[in-house]
Formats: sequence, structure tokens, C-alpha cells
Amino acid sequence: MKEFRVIAVEGLPEIRAGDDLAALIAERTELEDGDAVVIAQKAVSKVERRVVSLDGVEPSPRARALSGDRDPRQTEVILQETARVVRSRPPLLIAQTHHGFICASAGVDASNAPEVGSVVLLPADPDASAARLRARFAEVTGREVAVLVSDSFGRAWRQGTTDIAIGVAGMSPLLDLHGERDPAGYELHATTIAVADEITGAAQLVMGKLDRVPAAIVRGLNLTGEGSAQELVMPPERDLFR
Amino acid sequence: MKEFRVIAVEGLPEIRAGDDLAALIAERTELEDGDAVVIAQKAVSKVERRVVSLDGVEPSPRARALSGDRDPRQTEVILQETARVVRSRPPLLIAQTHHGFICASAGVDASNAPEVGSVVLLPADPDASAARLRARFAEVTGREVAVLVSDSFGRAWRQGTTDIAIGVAGMSPLLDLHGERDPAGYELHATTIAVADEITGAAQLVMGKLDRVPAAIVRGLNLTGEGSAQELVMPPERDLFR
Repeated sequence: MKEFRVIAVEGLPEIRAGDDLAALIAERTELEDGDAVVIAQKAVSKVERRVVSLDGVEPSPRARALSGDRDPRQTEVILQETARVVRSRPPLLIAQTHHGFICASAGVDASNAPEVGSVVLLPADPDASAARLRARFAEVTGREVAVLVSDSFGRAWRQGTTDIAIGVAGMSPLLDLHGERDPAGYELHATTIAVADEITGAAQLVMGKLDRVPAAIVRGLNLTGEGSAQELVMPPERDLFR
Repeated sequence: MKEFRVIAVEGLPEIRAGDDLAALIAERTELEDGDAVVIAQKAVSKVERRVVSLDGVEPSPRARALSGDRDPRQTEVILQETARVVRSRPPLLIAQTHHGFICASAGVDASNAPEVGSVVLLPADPDASAARLRARFAEVTGREVAVLVSDSFGRAWRQGTTDIAIGVAGMSPLLDLHGERDPAGYELHATTIAVADEITGAAQLVMGKLDRVPAAIVRGLNLTGEGSAQELVMPPERDLFR
């Protein structure tokens, strides 16, 4: 039977700036070659000091206009992380980040921030974060794993968030079936599967939001290869929903 | 350690109209209370005879205009399944179905159709399909399981499809954390998680497209309760992307 397992990495301490996240995770689980280690964006961002204190942030008039009942200083930080505002209905602000991701508040979040009055940004380069973590896992454990940095994104037309991959290392995030034919000879219609987003979504089911479980292992898919979360970003010319 | 498993249901025969799908699945796996049984939409649709032969379909002028290089008879069937055209760039057609789902081709698909010259529609009422299958699993096995009918949908802004839930029985598809606070006292930002879509996405990873594996078991989440895939459809007044 083809099967895989999704295992929470429990017992991690509160993550702090500069922590050796890979070592902390590796101490609490026995990694195997081909595992995916899914790590919540917020843990990666904290380690990488992507935390901004709102003290001293001066909101622009545009930030004030887009804030609704949100702290306008937080909106100012959101706009600094924003390449393009996609939709806004204050305080809701859907933005394209400098990385190209489209999400609420350009990924800027106050919940689970290290202290009240600060907000957490997405990693500056989540693919590079994933690659560094993957290299560190190899150093610490001798194992070749894939690393996925995940975040909870809303979707157009669907209620609720799912966790998707914003950083990828050690696997291809897309499975391309293009040109494959089904048993009746038809070329497959949905030809590319976003496996990285399905893996991070699966990991979310054991990570939760309140449980302080910022990482999970997905074991049994025998992941290898290379890839980038940028492959998951729809190119503008194919995007009907810009 | 909190963990769960995702297990392919292998060895199923080609699914045909009128098959007892729950019995076929139950024969090939030992179900447990609290399992989710994820079943591909196409298998459910075939059992329910939601297959249309293109012979005798007369394409309207609108169907011809929206077809591009697709068979205009197929486009005619798509328009019959469509409540509202959301975007079109022929042959690409993003439609809201009569159920409220927004997806390519209103869910009409030629791949994996029982024969060349026919197309498969979404189930008429996928929640009812899930509920019937759930009841039949209880009859055949004595087990209380959740049933999710899944389909591969594209997403705005992201490359690749993920499998999402179009029919739900025996669980709540959304996990609502509204009002919960993180350890620093902040109310959680992303308050509702689309767990049903994360479960179907996980199942897709063992189901594949070519492997004739139309079902998977997700074991260890101990699912209970009631719910409908309609809860996953964004209400128009909250939808910024209509």
C-alpha cells in the first residue's frame, strides 16, 4: 500500500532570534532521507529577525486610508512589504509581496509576534531560508531532506485558509503530468499538481495555530530534486485574476 | 507524537455506473472510526451516471465563441453546468457551477471519461453523494467515517492544482479559531482553517492521476461531526474576486 505519514515535531521551545532551528528540530525527531520538513514561516522569520517594532513607525496618509480599524503603523509596514495592492476593503488588504505572493496583509502578522507592539514579516527570501535549513539538516543529521517554509493563505472564492509553500528546497514543488494520457487515450486536463502546497496543507493539520508546533515531518513520499517556491507563482501572462 | 497517515486504496477495478463504491473500497481496506475516506469526484460521478455523450449535443453560438480549440459540443456541456462565467480566454473558461464552486470548465472533464466522445460532470449534489457513501460505509463496515469527495481545482495566482473538497459528510470542513488568542494575547489573524481542503490535498498525494487510485484513507485525525462543502464556498458579500 502506498502511504505516507505526517508527524508533528513537538516539544520545541519558543523560537527566538538567532536560534539554530534545524538543530532544535533534529533533536526532537529521527529524520530520514526523503522526508519533507515543513516549518511555519513565523518560526523562520523569528530566527531571521524579521520582526518589526511598531514604535517609531510613522504611518503615511495612504496607510491611514487603508487601515480601517487596524493600527495604521501596522498598515505602513504592510505597504512596505507590498509590491502591488490587489484588493482592499479596509482593514482587509490583499497584496502582492515583493516575492510575488498574493496574500492578506502582504504576509505581515501580529499574532504570535514575540511581543505586543511588534509584527512579523515574511522571510526576505524564503527559498534561501529553506535551502539554508536543508543544508543545516544535512550537517546535523547526515540526512537529505526537503524543506518547505509554509504560511496560511486565504484563497479566492473559498472560505478558510490552507497552508501553502512560500519557500522550497530539495524537491520540485510541481508535479507535471503534461502529455500523459489516461487509459482511454485522453490527454490529462489538470496536468500540473502543486504537490508542495498539498504537503504543507497536510502538515498544517498537525501543526495547528495554538499548539506551538512550528514544524512537522512528512515521511514516505521520498522527495528528491530541486525547486523553488517561485515556480508556484502564476506568471502575469497566465494570470486571469490580477 | 501527534501524527496521521494517508493510505492509498489500491486494487480497485475500473469504476462503472451503478457500482457499490463504498463496498468496493471497504473490501480493500480495514476502516476505523474517525477515518476520512477521500474519493475522487470522477469515481463518484461515474457511479452516479454523470457522464454525457457528446453525440447529439448541439453547440450554441456562445459555446462556439468560447471554445477556442476545444470541441464546441464540450463547451456547450460546460455552459449547461455553468451558473456564471467568471473569466474566459478560449479555450480556458473559469465558471461558477450551479453548486457555487468556481473552477475551470465548470468541472466538466474529458480525461478519464469512460469512453472517447464522452465527458464527466461533477455530481449533481456532492454533499448528498458524500452522505450516501458515509451511510453505506456504516452499513457495510459498522464504522463511522467522514467522507470527502475531492476534485483538482486550479487557484488564482498559484500554479498547479490542489485537490479540494466538493462534497463533505461526517466532519466540519472548517476549523474556526475565531476569538482564540496566542500566548502574547493577540487574537489570531487567520482564524478559520479549511481542514477539509487540506485533507483532500493530502489524499491527492497518494491518489495520483494515472494510477487508477480513486480513493485514499486519512487515518489519525479522529474526525467527527457534521458539515457541508457549501461552508467552503465564499459568500458573495465577502468575496473580493467575483
